[in-house]
Amino acid sequence: MKTVITNGIIVTMNRDMDMYPEGYVIVEDNRISEVGPMAALAHRVTEWESSRQEGISIMDAGHGIVMPGMVNTHCHMGMIPFRGLGDDCKDRLRVFLLPMESRAMDRELAGLSSRYAICELLLSGVTTVMDMYYFEDAVAEVMDQMGIRGIAGETVMEEASCDAGTPREAIALGEELIKRYRNHPRIQGCIAPHGTTTCSSSTLQAIHQVNDRYGVPFTLHVAEMDYEMSYLKEQYGCTPIEYLDRLGILDSHTLSAHSIRLTEQDISLMAKSGSSVAHCIGSNTKAAKGVAPVSSMLEQGLAVGLGTDGPASGNTLDIFTQMRFCANFHKNETGNRSAFPAKDIVSMATIWGAGALGLDHVTGSLEPGKEADLVVVETDSPNMFPVYDPYSALVYSARADNVRDVFVAGRCLVKDRQLVYQDFRQIREDLRQKMNQTAFGKMGNLV
Amino acid sequence: MKTVITNGIIVTMNRDMDMYPEGYVIVEDNRISEVGPMAALAHRVTEWESSRQEGISIMDAGHGIVMPGMVNTHCHMGMIPFRGLGDDCKDRLRVFLLPMESRAMDRELAGLSSRYAICELLLSGVTTVMDMYYFEDAVAEVMDQMGIRGIAGETVMEEASCDAGTPREAIALGEELIKRYRNHPRIQGCIAPHGTTTCSSSTLQAIHQVNDRYGVPFTLHVAEMDYEMSYLKEQYGCTPIEYLDRLGILDSHTLSAHSIRLTEQDISLMAKSGSSVAHCIGSNTKAAKGVAPVSSMLEQGLAVGLGTDGPASGNTLDIFTQMRFCANFHKNETGNRSAFPAKDIVSMATIWGAGALGLDHVTGSLEPGKEADLVVVETDSPNMFPVYDPYSALVYSARADNVRDVFVAGRCLVKDRQLVYQDFRQIREDLRQKMNQTAFGKMGNLV
Repeated sequence: MKTVITNGIIVTMNRDMDMYPEGYVIVEDNRISEVGPMAALAHRVTEWESSRQEGISIMDAGHGIVMPGMVNTHCHMGMIPFRGLGDDCKDRLRVFLLPMESRAMDRELAGLSSRYAICELLLSGVTTVMDMYYFEDAVAEVMDQMGIRGIAGETVMEEASCDAGTPREAIALGEELIKRYRNHPRIQGCIAPHGTTTCSSSTLQAIHQVNDRYGVPFTLHVAEMDYEMSYLKEQYGCTPIEYLDRLGILDSHTLSAHSIRLTEQDISLMAKSGSSVAHCIGSNTKAAKGVAPVSSMLEQGLAVGLGTDGPASGNTLDIFTQMRFCANFHKNETGNRSAFPAKDIVSMATIWGAGALGLDHVTGSLEPGKEADLVVVETDSPNMFPVYDPYSALVYSARADNVRDVFVAGRCLVKDRQLVYQDFRQIREDLRQKMNQTAFGKMGNLV
Repeated sequence: MKTVITNGIIVTMNRDMDMYPEGYVIVEDNRISEVGPMAALAHRVTEWESSRQEGISIMDAGHGIVMPGMVNTHCHMGMIPFRGLGDDCKDRLRVFLLPMESRAMDRELAGLSSRYAICELLLSGVTTVMDMYYFEDAVAEVMDQMGIRGIAGETVMEEASCDAGTPREAIALGEELIKRYRNHPRIQGCIAPHGTTTCSSSTLQAIHQVNDRYGVPFTLHVAEMDYEMSYLKEQYGCTPIEYLDRLGILDSHTLSAHSIRLTEQDISLMAKSGSSVAHCIGSNTKAAKGVAPVSSMLEQGLAVGLGTDGPASGNTLDIFTQMRFCANFHKNETGNRSAFPAKDIVSMATIWGAGALGLDHVTGSLEPGKEADLVVVETDSPNMFPVYDPYSALVYSARADNVRDVFVAGRCLVKDRQLVYQDFRQIREDLRQKMNQTAFGKMGNLV
């Protein structure tokens, strides 16, 4: 099976940042086989069209931007029921999130929520997601069924959580998950400790050991919270990053989510270890937690990807919103309108994000041999004209709804803004009904 | 003619902030005649439906959010051709904007661009726009034809501009514009000095005098630029606001655009004068100019509305993007996640914005007697579920493409996401062709 995408502005995000103002991409089975300017293709298209060869389909991008599928490096897909609940509330973690999680979250709800979240992700051009939450066996199943690329991180807390009574139990669930998806072409499992203060040091080390054995990412919330900073200072006289380093669990598999409160010394440690960052600018600033020092991270060569955080915190799951936040916050922070140029922002959304997940040999750019994870962003809508520079258009003008078509591993999952294999209305209805059977149904939901 | 909008989450933005989780709005001719809960209507709907009374149409909002039309308090609609041109360039004003303006901008291009911009505004739920640019007679004509509510501000510069050789000439154009639209139900003209350093003090005073005579807003760029701050400091030993105050032109008709660099003393002067602010958070932070002290402005009782700035600076013209930027930047700035709650942000986007333009007796809330400027925001799309609080959904979840229907002065201009009276493709094509006849066609535009 061969799909030829023609007449696109091709943003490859390869090492040379090749861009073809009028170009094509050929997808064969699950992989990209060719990328180039239309001139190199024209003759063959006519042949294919005239001979109507079976197994070749031609998709006209109509001067849309063809880019690598976006990578969401930090998400909690099970939390759709929390979206918009107590957004401006001071202590919403304790007032809303934790109580509702223990009262209402179960395997079915986490699965239905993740199904819904994947619709939102795919429709907005996200083809790879790093998730961490509970009941991740259900989440991985849904990822598999729906065709997205993803890493399902089973969250571990020291206290009892909604799917495990003890950390040992949660670690066992996680290890099972890792083993089940070991040879899967799109899905990986991993064990994701909740954070530096919500897991004991021995739990953190135990998790790291298991993940390390299977070579999967080690992701957790780091240097995000006030109490985290003061607690580790008091207990161990160090920063969260120093703490991970001392425990021997800061290495090239470590993906630190948030990491807002870093010293220069922290960033050096991270850079030396080869670890990565999931930068969640929208969630962090909505919660008034500050702007992570990404400028310095990039200077020191860290892989930084973008993350939406969960719908409870960041509300929407698309990466366009994060790109725009990222550009504006960091330009403003550095006092330099030329800092964080659009190319770098698109890099974070694609190839750098893939790198942060250890998947840049697989996805994140349009290059022959890579998996065909790609997105067509139309340029017909009012917000998308004119286009002088496609990176600029993607960061400062585009929105999630400009996504027209989405491929993951060569399969077209979104076509003309619609999910090809999913009935979104039914998925929403199933989630709504399930929510209404739980405590979420009594939280004053209007829709 | 009567339109009954049923089954909406009605966000009135009236003084008591009444909200009806299941409510209706009745539009009669150009005005709102009733707003209330569905219970108060049910009986009548059945009657109207069964008797099929002529002149009554029923529109089911389908659990969408029905809100006042949004107010864009600062825009340059003629600048669509500049969108995305040199976004990350250090001195783009002098490298791109000014040269292209003098080489390529004419009455036809300003008109075609404004026509395009109004499509974008209406489709994103903006029903009132304060514009300032050149050839505003063409802009006002287009506003009138297309049905939007607006104020067309003829820009005056001390130097020659693309539509006037001298400030005197520009002022004359502006006065003519004011007179032409004096009795128009939707359109006003005004004269808009470009800024505090780009007009002489006598020009500023002359403009103020004319605007004052006709009771129209006096809007200009204030306290935005580095050179502006240092120039006024050197020349007059004062801040831009103090300068306006000394010239006697800071009063209740003054709408200061941007106003990023204000002292507490400036804000007090503005509050005493009753003047207003067009807050352009997206444009300001993209240009690394800082975050205006809105917290303090609101404390002192200033009317603050949201503005997109022109497409050259802020890229997109919808107010949803600005709402989300506004919430995140100010929460983060104040270090308080409860600061700038969603209700206040929606207020800036609607009733406070209307107040900033002196139009809050006309638009900005859903109240009997006011002009029927309203928007239905659907809640069926993936990003819009669930809704616990409509303000929160509007600020943190909604996007421009969730706008389903738009009314201005009782006329339905957007229905099911489409412009009712305009052919958008043709409008884009006309603009593209015109651009290609000018220097814009040689700037490497890909789309």
